[in-house]
Amino acid sequence: MGILIKNTLAMLPSEDGHAAGRHDLYVEGADIAGIDEAPEGFVASETIDGSRRLTIPGLINAHTHTYMSIMRNVADDLSFPDWLFGTIEPIEDRLEPEDAYWASLLSQIEMIRTGTTCFNDMQMHIGQTTRAVTESGMRAVICRGLVGGEYDLDERRIREALEERGAFASCDRLTFRLGPHAPYSCGPDYLRGVAEVARREGMGIHIHIAESQSETDNMWKDHHCTPVEYVRDAGVFELPTIAAHCIRVSESDRAILAEHGVSVVTNPASNMKLGNGFAPVPELMAAGVNVCLGTDGAASNNAQNMFREMALLALIHKGTHDTPQCVSADEVLDMATRNGAAALGLPTGSIEVGKKADLVMLDLDAPSLTPLGNPVAALAYSANGSEVTDVIIDGKPVMRDRALLTIDEQRVHHEIDRICKRLGLA
Amino acid sequence: MGILIKNTLAMLPSEDGHAAGRHDLYVEGADIAGIDEAPEGFVASETIDGSRRLTIPGLINAHTHTYMSIMRNVADDLSFPDWLFGTIEPIEDRLEPEDAYWASLLSQIEMIRTGTTCFNDMQMHIGQTTRAVTESGMRAVICRGLVGGEYDLDERRIREALEERGAFASCDRLTFRLGPHAPYSCGPDYLRGVAEVARREGMGIHIHIAESQSETDNMWKDHHCTPVEYVRDAGVFELPTIAAHCIRVSESDRAILAEHGVSVVTNPASNMKLGNGFAPVPELMAAGVNVCLGTDGAASNNAQNMFREMALLALIHKGTHDTPQCVSADEVLDMATRNGAAALGLPTGSIEVGKKADLVMLDLDAPSLTPLGNPVAALAYSANGSEVTDVIIDGKPVMRDRALLTIDEQRVHHEIDRICKRLGLA
Repeated sequence: MGILIKNTLAMLPSEDGHAAGRHDLYVEGADIAGIDEAPEGFVASETIDGSRRLTIPGLINAHTHTYMSIMRNVADDLSFPDWLFGTIEPIEDRLEPEDAYWASLLSQIEMIRTGTTCFNDMQMHIGQTTRAVTESGMRAVICRGLVGGEYDLDERRIREALEERGAFASCDRLTFRLGPHAPYSCGPDYLRGVAEVARREGMGIHIHIAESQSETDNMWKDHHCTPVEYVRDAGVFELPTIAAHCIRVSESDRAILAEHGVSVVTNPASNMKLGNGFAPVPELMAAGVNVCLGTDGAASNNAQNMFREMALLALIHKGTHDTPQCVSADEVLDMATRNGAAALGLPTGSIEVGKKADLVMLDLDAPSLTPLGNPVAALAYSANGSEVTDVIIDGKPVMRDRALLTIDEQRVHHEIDRICKRLGLA
Repeated sequence: MGILIKNTLAMLPSEDGHAAGRHDLYVEGADIAGIDEAPEGFVASETIDGSRRLTIPGLINAHTHTYMSIMRNVADDLSFPDWLFGTIEPIEDRLEPEDAYWASLLSQIEMIRTGTTCFNDMQMHIGQTTRAVTESGMRAVICRGLVGGEYDLDERRIREALEERGAFASCDRLTFRLGPHAPYSCGPDYLRGVAEVARREGMGIHIHIAESQSETDNMWKDHHCTPVEYVRDAGVFELPTIAAHCIRVSESDRAILAEHGVSVVTNPASNMKLGNGFAPVPELMAAGVNVCLGTDGAASNNAQNMFREMALLALIHKGTHDTPQCVSADEVLDMATRNGAAALGLPTGSIEVGKKADLVMLDLDAPSLTPLGNPVAALAYSANGSEVTDVIIDGKPVMRDRALLTIDEQRVHHEIDRICKRLGLA
């Protein structure tokens, strides 16, 4: 029993990027089981008319903090200390664990509605994003944020992270990484300890690196090295590593990242919004680094919409590099799909037989897609996410004709309203 | 007979920017006739429940070319000469006048759906945008693009522009300006001649200035002045002038623009997309220039969505200036509303008694507006335009519950499809 998407304009991988063409897509179980050719014994339990739909691989939000949607639009146009220490952290201190569950569901509503099927989450509250994911049907990589001093390996948090992984082992849409927060919040021995646990447990790493000039300046003052060197020297890069931001990275840093196969997640909206500048994305690509794309949390974005992020990524480097030929639409689509899948080590991110059936359908009658022109350019430059009508994740429909099938939106809004009132945010 | 919008969260002007509060809005004829207090003898022919709506002044797209939506997503990631001379101009040469009518309607569909109520259009084909506006119900300023050599005042085009103004004089949603294209495409005597006609006819000017480094370089080589000085010296700035782009403007240029009360329209997406960089928006504001916001045409954007443009405007200068306190959400909302109205000389752009009833309602239950937080920040940073449910222009509903009342969308899509096929774009 499976799903047949008939005669859709499907965005398939091509030799030099992506190519859209008319295809029939066969979904069986969790997988893409056939393109134009039914797999043996295929029986369609459902046939979707794809003729007025552009079907693309689900977008992968490679760095976010889904619990932060509760802090959307509450701390804007502020200096970094006023933002983090004056507003965000005092709210975080008053969050109860279950608040993170509702806030994560809220972020997932926005992500599903705008075509994201998989996200990489650095969370604070064990068991909350995970629980939300089991219900929403999304694919996610969960990383407990870890912070530790010079010689203090916070064994409780690591133990909890491992227990969480064990508790959710039956949900194969979930995988787990360790999330040492950043070079400035984790001492070298602590990083070394986390890396050792990751090695033992066969887990990857998710970390923030070189997000601001002050981080880089302080690192030089305190340790006479760059943030990238600091993390490398702690042995972290021996593990599969996803590094968020990497804005202030030198040519030598970029070579280190490439050499160790570190994937970099760029977060253009968040980086600009906090006044941290622009990641050297063209230079990272030139160095051979796998670059992927994320929204970061809603407290610094303030959306969880990968279409807006794709447009930003496609536009800003043309501006900083004074050429329209810098960071193409094709490259942006890679960063939002295949590159993210490669970073997370997941068999998704492209429409190919054998890949997970994480599929997003856009309305070809939307004004922003009329005329469509080059479909890859349309995704990067003219779509805004509202064109998404249907989303399938792991072979299961989670949105159909813009109606969410897995999440009770009204209930989530009601709970968010209640939480905001308690926190004095409404 | 009028419209009462009851108990809506309305974005009103405040002393230091904008403030949202619960209000009843009374619309009578084309005007906002009362806030919280019914005008004398008011009878509501229609009452709209505004309780789950954020009502804002309609956005003003202060620089676009609506006919260019036909060229959406057809010339991306190309060098400027390949874009303009290799792709766009050859298509423009094959456009028939009526194509511009359908393409303008298509742009207007996208604008209405994303909360724009008024636009400033530089057009090629006389009578087409105008005809589309009379049907769509939008407010527009129409400028016939004018190009002329050193000593050649193109009297035919100017005569046609004046004839068009006469022919549409009965539509008070339409006003007309003269649109000398740019310093590099208009000789000084030509500009002087156009300015003379504008003075005689009581019209304003709409022009592109200093869009690229090469324009500035060539101007220096050929005329030993800046593009701003060149246009000033032709007497253009004696007229009410709207200057699009102004990316490469020196400190002295900015002082000239401020001194002459020239309004500058910044077009962030288009400027980045064509590799032209970032307009010095914070510096223009500091010099006292009235800065407003536009999308430019869909061939270089590739959207006509002012919400995306607002987000870009709010974000990019924080990135280029390394501070989150550069170009605030409040300032962005001004540029997209009041400043645009001031530039165009139109009594719209704010919710005040006596202003035109150009009103846009957003769904407070949209995921991107949940939680809402600061409503001004929500408009700049988290909305994407898809939250717009209702649009009133000049006191008349043009969209209700996301259904367009004035334009037959299916017909427009059908005609666009036909035109694209003829042009070989589909």
